[in-house]
Amino acid sequence: MVNIGILGCGRIGQVHARSVAQSEGAVVTVVADAFEAPAAELAARIGCQVLDADALIQSADVDAVIIGTPTDTHYDLIHAAAKAGKAIFCEKPVDMSADRIRDCIKAVETSGVAFMTAFNRRFDPNFANVRARITAGEIGNVELVTIQSRDPSPPPISYIKSSGGLFRDMMIHDLDMARFLLGEEPVSVYAVGSSLVDPAIGEAGDVDTAAVTLTTASGKICQISNSRRATYGYDQRIEVHGANGMLRAENMLENTVESATESGFRRAPAQHFFLERYEAAYRAEIAEFVTALNAGSQANPSIHDGLRAQVLADAATKSYETGKPVSVR
Amino acid sequence: MVNIGILGCGRIGQVHARSVAQSEGAVVTVVADAFEAPAAELAARIGCQVLDADALIQSADVDAVIIGTPTDTHYDLIHAAAKAGKAIFCEKPVDMSADRIRDCIKAVETSGVAFMTAFNRRFDPNFANVRARITAGEIGNVELVTIQSRDPSPPPISYIKSSGGLFRDMMIHDLDMARFLLGEEPVSVYAVGSSLVDPAIGEAGDVDTAAVTLTTASGKICQISNSRRATYGYDQRIEVHGANGMLRAENMLENTVESATESGFRRAPAQHFFLERYEAAYRAEIAEFVTALNAGSQANPSIHDGLRAQVLADAATKSYETGKPVSVR
Amino acid sequence: MVNIGILGCGRIGQVHARSVAQSEGAVVTVVADAFEAPAAELAARIGCQVLDADALIQSADVDAVIIGTPTDTHYDLIHAAAKAGKAIFCEKPVDMSADRIRDCIKAVETSGVAFMTAFNRRFDPNFANVRARITAGEIGNVELVTIQSRDPSPPPISYIKSSGGLFRDMMIHDLDMARFLLGEEPVSVYAVGSSLVDPAIGEAGDVDTAAVTLTTASGKICQISNSRRATYGYDQRIEVHGANGMLRAENMLENTVESATESGFRRAPAQHFFLERYEAAYRAEIAEFVTALNAGSQANPSIHDGLRAQVLADAATKSYETGKPVSVR
Amino acid sequence: MVNIGILGCGRIGQVHARSVAQSEGAVVTVVADAFEAPAAELAARIGCQVLDADALIQSADVDAVIIGTPTDTHYDLIHAAAKAGKAIFCEKPVDMSADRIRDCIKAVETSGVAFMTAFNRRFDPNFANVRARITAGEIGNVELVTIQSRDPSPPPISYIKSSGGLFRDMMIHDLDMARFLLGEEPVSVYAVGSSLVDPAIGEAGDVDTAAVTLTTASGKICQISNSRRATYGYDQRIEVHGANGMLRAENMLENTVESATESGFRRAPAQHFFLERYEAAYRAEIAEFVTALNAGSQANPSIHDGLRAQVLADAATKSYETGKPVSVR
Repeated sequence: MVNIGILGCGRIGQVHARSVAQSEGAVVTVVADAFEAPAAELAARIGCQVLDADALIQSADVDAVIIGTPTDTHYDLIHAAAKAGKAIFCEKPVDMSADRIRDCIKAVETSGVAFMTAFNRRFDPNFANVRARITAGEIGNVELVTIQSRDPSPPPISYIKSSGGLFRDMMIHDLDMARFLLGEEPVSVYAVGSSLVDPAIGEAGDVDTAAVTLTTASGKICQISNSRRATYGYDQRIEVHGANGMLRAENMLENTVESATESGFRRAPAQHFFLERYEAAYRAEIAEFVTALNAGSQANPSIHDGLRAQVLADAATKSYETGKPVSVR
Repeated sequence: MVNIGILGCGRIGQVHARSVAQSEGAVVTVVADAFEAPAAELAARIGCQVLDADALIQSADVDAVIIGTPTDTHYDLIHAAAKAGKAIFCEKPVDMSADRIRDCIKAVETSGVAFMTAFNRRFDPNFANVRARITAGEIGNVELVTIQSRDPSPPPISYIKSSGGLFRDMMIHDLDMARFLLGEEPVSVYAVGSSLVDPAIGEAGDVDTAAVTLTTASGKICQISNSRRATYGYDQRIEVHGANGMLRAENMLENTVESATESGFRRAPAQHFFLERYEAAYRAEIAEFVTALNAGSQANPSIHDGLRAQVLADAATKSYETGKPVSVR
Repeated sequence: MVNIGILGCGRIGQVHARSVAQSEGAVVTVVADAFEAPAAELAARIGCQVLDADALIQSADVDAVIIGTPTDTHYDLIHAAAKAGKAIFCEKPVDMSADRIRDCIKAVETSGVAFMTAFNRRFDPNFANVRARITAGEIGNVELVTIQSRDPSPPPISYIKSSGGLFRDMMIHDLDMARFLLGEEPVSVYAVGSSLVDPAIGEAGDVDTAAVTLTTASGKICQISNSRRATYGYDQRIEVHGANGMLRAENMLENTVESATESGFRRAPAQHFFLERYEAAYRAEIAEFVTALNAGSQANPSIHDGLRAQVLADAATKSYETGKPVSVR
Repeated sequence: MVNIGILGCGRIGQVHARSVAQSEGAVVTVVADAFEAPAAELAARIGCQVLDADALIQSADVDAVIIGTPTDTHYDLIHAAAKAGKAIFCEKPVDMSADRIRDCIKAVETSGVAFMTAFNRRFDPNFANVRARITAGEIGNVELVTIQSRDPSPPPISYIKSSGGLFRDMMIHDLDMARFLLGEEPVSVYAVGSSLVDPAIGEAGDVDTAAVTLTTASGKICQISNSRRATYGYDQRIEVHGANGMLRAENMLENTVESATESGFRRAPAQHFFLERYEAAYRAEIAEFVTALNAGSQANPSIHDGLRAQVLADAATKSYETGKPVSVR
């Protein structure tokens, strides 16, 4: 039984608390938040202690921490938790700077603590099914991957400004998914982007519509497209072409109902956003973390996966800025 | 090369003329119609003679006739053509009276001429594919068949009045399809019906919404439903359950385009009506007739299939009228 | 906050206990079972008392009971709970005998306790969506309903023998769904059935493949088909035709992945059986029960709905046995 | 009535001859081919003259020519036909060299003859429907286009060697489709490619798997992917995202049949290759040419469309060779 401390009691911290409650083999013993109210509320709901972040990390009642705080706090929390010998589950991105992630890797490897990066989409039952079937050889050697990812609507401009830009904030999930599906590291990144959804996003120095091309050493290709808007819900699709066929995962719709009238056959919109769409994925990633801790094995995605995705996001950003493909090593 | 005479130059006669033109192994040499204009027009388009029906049947330029005239003329034309030794392709229903169809069978069998009943749906590529896969054993022993058939909108009341009623006019196609898919003769028929689409249809003594249950000696079941209206196009679906699985044929839509907006995912309506939906089927049934004639083999569906469907339609009508299941032998 | 006692700690009792835990406004305070182990296990998991059924019903810690015991015990438990003034949530069927259900209605109405019959499928998000849109007038007046329901595989013969037969054990859900969707009481029932899946089922006096036709006073029609086997998962579909269009709910598949190879495009099987397929429905029906209790309003489906479905199942059984349609009043 | 001469009696010439026969307003009067047999056969089938190419172009019986000969003969035939005042329908590509196409434009514009470039996919009913709905404003301003195009299997290496390479031979259709859907000229082209399907293709200096990114001046983006292999048939899909929603055209499958078994739900492969998939498109493009000629209006796509697609294909080839995005003006 793993005792878990939750750092950050906002939306994602609450999701993870619920997942721990539904998992077997772990329990939340302590929660912490920079603000009093959310910590107190969450603690009341699940029946556990409230401490401040430092005390939580040092607490003898805590074997592992789930880090769901703002990105700029991850670095210090990871170092402190590693020093204290606590296993770490950390929300993506590990950090906005690849170099600082490299520091975190040193701290984690020095201390020998377990570390899992929260790329939740790998645990979506549909995407996990695609990956498992690729690994099982169902479509032969992977040749070309297409990833489409669209948010239902853009975040506030204030968020955009501190987000690190679309490639680091939004596409990072797709860049990790590309690695997950290609089964080989991208060596070249080419990115284009535009501000078509909202001119204010362009004025803030970011793009809201973007496309990336990745290639690997053996010549595999991945095309990613992103938009900050999709009127029909949260658009999350992958498609993988191999020597023997194709595997794709379609959107999950709100329900299975179809109507038919003069205007044709109509099905429901896609599930609205990530909390609905990835509900099962959030549960599964925590279950994986808990299972690995209880088994003493390494959970994936690792902190190195966190680093690789950040390196690709940096390269995409640079490619967009320079108009040229960027090599990644 | 088969020389074909077309009796009846209305819509269906024109469809068959086009099919003959596209087939290899046959040519239309003569056309006839009760009215001058349609015969002249069709003859001009395809470059052939116009004769009256009797002369056409006697013509040395005619090896086979396609009967596309009103149902009440079929009986005499079949007898005349059989006597003249001409092969016969006859639109459904062969006749409104099962006993008169039995007379036609005698005439046809006495003369030994080839006879094919035009149940076009058997030649729809989708339905034919389902049947071929049943026959090949893909789903094992057939257990339950569901047939849904809806016209886009009701015919004029004048047509309804002389149609013989929904079960004989419209459901006869589905009753033939049931036999085609069950692979065993129905022994019991239960029918219900209502006038829900247009009260004038009820006042004319007919129904516009109906459901039939067929059972066979070995216990196979078929459910058919019909409506004289479907706002989303011509609804033509079959579904067959067997011991090892299920086969179904969905509607053919106007195109493959799907839109996605706030209101969800929308595809086109079903193809509007029989001329579009069964275009390939019309071509294939004539090709089958021509091929069989050139090969000297019997084309199916036979005149006996025409009789069996009529017997089932009569039984459905009687079941609807009496409120009781009707045995057919 | 409603205190709930659970009678019966088998599979369905455990499902309901989980649903209560996830609902707001209720808590399980006591559980009871004829056997010691399941009650003790469930009590340990959720942290509550174990009592015997009588003591549970009399307990001051219990406001409402969830009856998930074998059908032949429902009658006495309902009477005892009604006498004790406890609200009742009762698994279907309320009883195998319509007359005994009528007795239960008297007991419930005399005591004035709330009563909800557990027709879970009404709470499936897909079916509930169809019903809501019918009620909102989206397809106009309902004309014809098609319900297809197939279990993945037959239950043991021992179960079949005491089940009351397919129409009362399995189709009762579809008969309730028919009432839910038609919006009008059926007045006539015609049933056919066969033993095609397993001859042992026929030898046990039951059928494994069946079809029913219902008609209402205004002429609406419903066709139901059932099979005890579906190789591709739990087949649960409804389709409703109205004056202005059609609404249908398709199966829920195991995932959204589609593969494409030489043999075509392949999607996953349907979710395997009722615990997966109706997971959301089980949660929603308990939420409805709790909400109604807290609001002091009547929850649906009522005990009268339980009676009507049983009356239709009896009529279907009689129709199957006599080969004739049966009137229900 | 337009009198048409067909130059080239191979597969595509025969397709066009059939389309002319099915169109109203035109008739094939003369055919020509470098080889005697195909010309004689086609002439016999449709009942027309055989001449050599020069005589055909000069013939008073010819108002318009359809050029379906090898690409390297187009240049001379276009010049001769323009000089002779004949309207021209020319297979794609107009020529392998953009500069030579510019010469052809001069010849055509000097003589004032009508000219249509045979980008058949614009006439596919599905793609045409998408374009019409974009033009009608259904999804607002176009932001991102995805085009997927895969042949069922690679052509012979001998063909590859003289094809001009995948970007000019295969992707040129998708580059034209991109222009058709974007509604704005691409200004930048980035291409990647690999030889993954067959190493012999790589040895011949070509790629068999490729991806291109196009951007327009206003920031619209198009992603294209191509493969010389698709085990599941001819993969031809487009998807267009706009401010208000999405439009996509899925593959046309061989039939509408779906089976369900333990392994899930299976539909037929995509239609095998271009002759089936674009049958309607081939008919519609000839109808458009004939209609425009009879109306005295300009048919689209024009010779300028032919040039623009070639310029983009050249740019894609150069981008692939240099590893850098290429500007097009």
